[in-house]
Amino acid sequence: MSKNDNHHVVSESRVRVRYAETDQMGVVYHSNHFIWFEVGRVDLLRQLGFSYREMERECKCHLAVVDARCRYRAPATYDDEIIVRTYIKKVRGSLVHFGYELLRGDERELIAEGETTHILIDTKKKIAPFPEKYMQALRSALGK
Amino acid sequence: MSKNDNHHVVSESRVRVRYAETDQMGVVYHSNHFIWFEVGRVDLLRQLGFSYREMERECKCHLAVVDARCRYRAPATYDDEIIVRTYIKKVRGSLVHFGYELLRGDERELIAEGETTHILIDTKKKIAPFPEKYMQALRSALGK
Amino acid sequence: MSKNDNHHVVSESRVRVRYAETDQMGVVYHSNHFIWFEVGRVDLLRQLGFSYREMERECKCHLAVVDARCRYRAPATYDDEIIVRTYIKKVRGSLVHFGYELLRGDERELIAEGETTHILIDTKKKIAPFPEKYMQALRSALGK
Amino acid sequence: MSKNDNHHVVSESRVRVRYAETDQMGVVYHSNHFIWFEVGRVDLLRQLGFSYREMERECKCHLAVVDARCRYRAPATYDDEIIVRTYIKKVRGSLVHFGYELLRGDERELIAEGETTHILIDTKKKIAPFPEKYMQALRSALGK
Repeated sequence: MSKNDNHHVVSESRVRVRYAETDQMGVVYHSNHFIWFEVGRVDLLRQLGFSYREMERECKCHLAVVDARCRYRAPATYDDEIIVRTYIKKVRGSLVHFGYELLRGDERELIAEGETTHILIDTKKKIAPFPEKYMQALRSALGK
Repeated sequence: MSKNDNHHVVSESRVRVRYAETDQMGVVYHSNHFIWFEVGRVDLLRQLGFSYREMERECKCHLAVVDARCRYRAPATYDDEIIVRTYIKKVRGSLVHFGYELLRGDERELIAEGETTHILIDTKKKIAPFPEKYMQALRSALGK
Repeated sequence: MSKNDNHHVVSESRVRVRYAETDQMGVVYHSNHFIWFEVGRVDLLRQLGFSYREMERECKCHLAVVDARCRYRAPATYDDEIIVRTYIKKVRGSLVHFGYELLRGDERELIAEGETTHILIDTKKKIAPFPEKYMQALRSALGK
Repeated sequence: MSKNDNHHVVSESRVRVRYAETDQMGVVYHSNHFIWFEVGRVDLLRQLGFSYREMERECKCHLAVVDARCRYRAPATYDDEIIVRTYIKKVRGSLVHFGYELLRGDERELIAEGETTHILIDTKKKIAPFPEKYMQALRSALGK
């Protein structure tokens, strides 16, 4: 766990590129980056002190994705080790914005950058407020 | 809808190979065949007169997979049109065995053959009996 | 094939939601929308008179994704029939921008909107110019 | 790296279940187990002293899957840590048979068992002999 230039808490996760994630262009198919973002997101929450799995169970809620974007800088290839750097860009009401950087291996070459925006919803798909303890954890990641 | 040599009802579904399904070997990654089997399974059930989606809702049950196998005969490649031929091999209590053939395009070249075995379970993961109307539909596919 | 308000050619593809595409939230996992965009993209090109598969073979080139975004408006659920509306927003040099709308079934409820930007690269990952016949086909979709 | 009752070398890999791998039944969709088998296979080869990525490049060959099977014993759920135990069951000519066990977390509950059979092929899809150094490495895993 470290901090970026905006003093946001940044988690680092590692994923190794699976054969299943490549396509016939010989590189990782572009939808997989969003799955790696999810790996990073869950690890960041874990480092902030809570498990997303338990949050779903406890508050009977889900973080639904409302917007997702990725800018691809360099291809990721089979068996690469990818570092997923994840941080929280903003928390506002029931919305959370996450930011991501994907870096390759020891040289930390930038592979991609992205953002996702999520909204907390209950089992009836209604917008729900964050329980206080989760809100505090999320805010702590903003580093202010 | 046709019948095979054992007089089983056989459904035919068509899927076009997606770029995302290929890997860097230039062919379809082998786990995708099981997803195509699912496409065939759902279509067979629809042809037998019921929707798997509604069955799940109505009887609050799922068809859990207990065994899955595929024998790969020839590679499937990007943009191929694949015909999924699906039939029921056996129904016994809460177990259903499905059989599949994957054929390529107009030449109907055999790409793969497979089987899956499923068991009906309720929301508590307990084995459940098939409601009578579904059991009758499944049995009708055995063509006896 | 129809035209939208900007006189762009718009293709329509249909995909049925697969069980494999759902997640434990009971809706389609958000990375799958990008795979459906690809289904739409390939169909649009086919309607413009060429096969993406043959273009890759003929010019030994690929359309690499440089940017992808999706805004999610409503959840897609298992067995839904999704209409993928695809059009070309811009062509500039070796860059092509595609736009997408995902609609559900007969009511044509808006599920998601998105864009992807692609660049034509050769087998050495160098930027390549569009062969004239493909460029003409792409431009024809801009409807000017 | 350890040995099983048949004195075969057994590698252990760990994967954490991703949200994308779950389905609306609330458990891991069954085709993902085959992707985890691949994670195990590559790790076993690495422990035997070679990288599958380099083997592909060096001998211009691929290990194509000819048969894949999985028996599901218990559902895997989101965020579970899965141990993939992989070993070589047989090597004969250009064929290699791998065996797998998937265990959950610290209790090492058995989730699934499986096998895959692969054949070495060259870039023209012709059966190829294993280069001697790889054959020796594979045989060493049989522990005889």
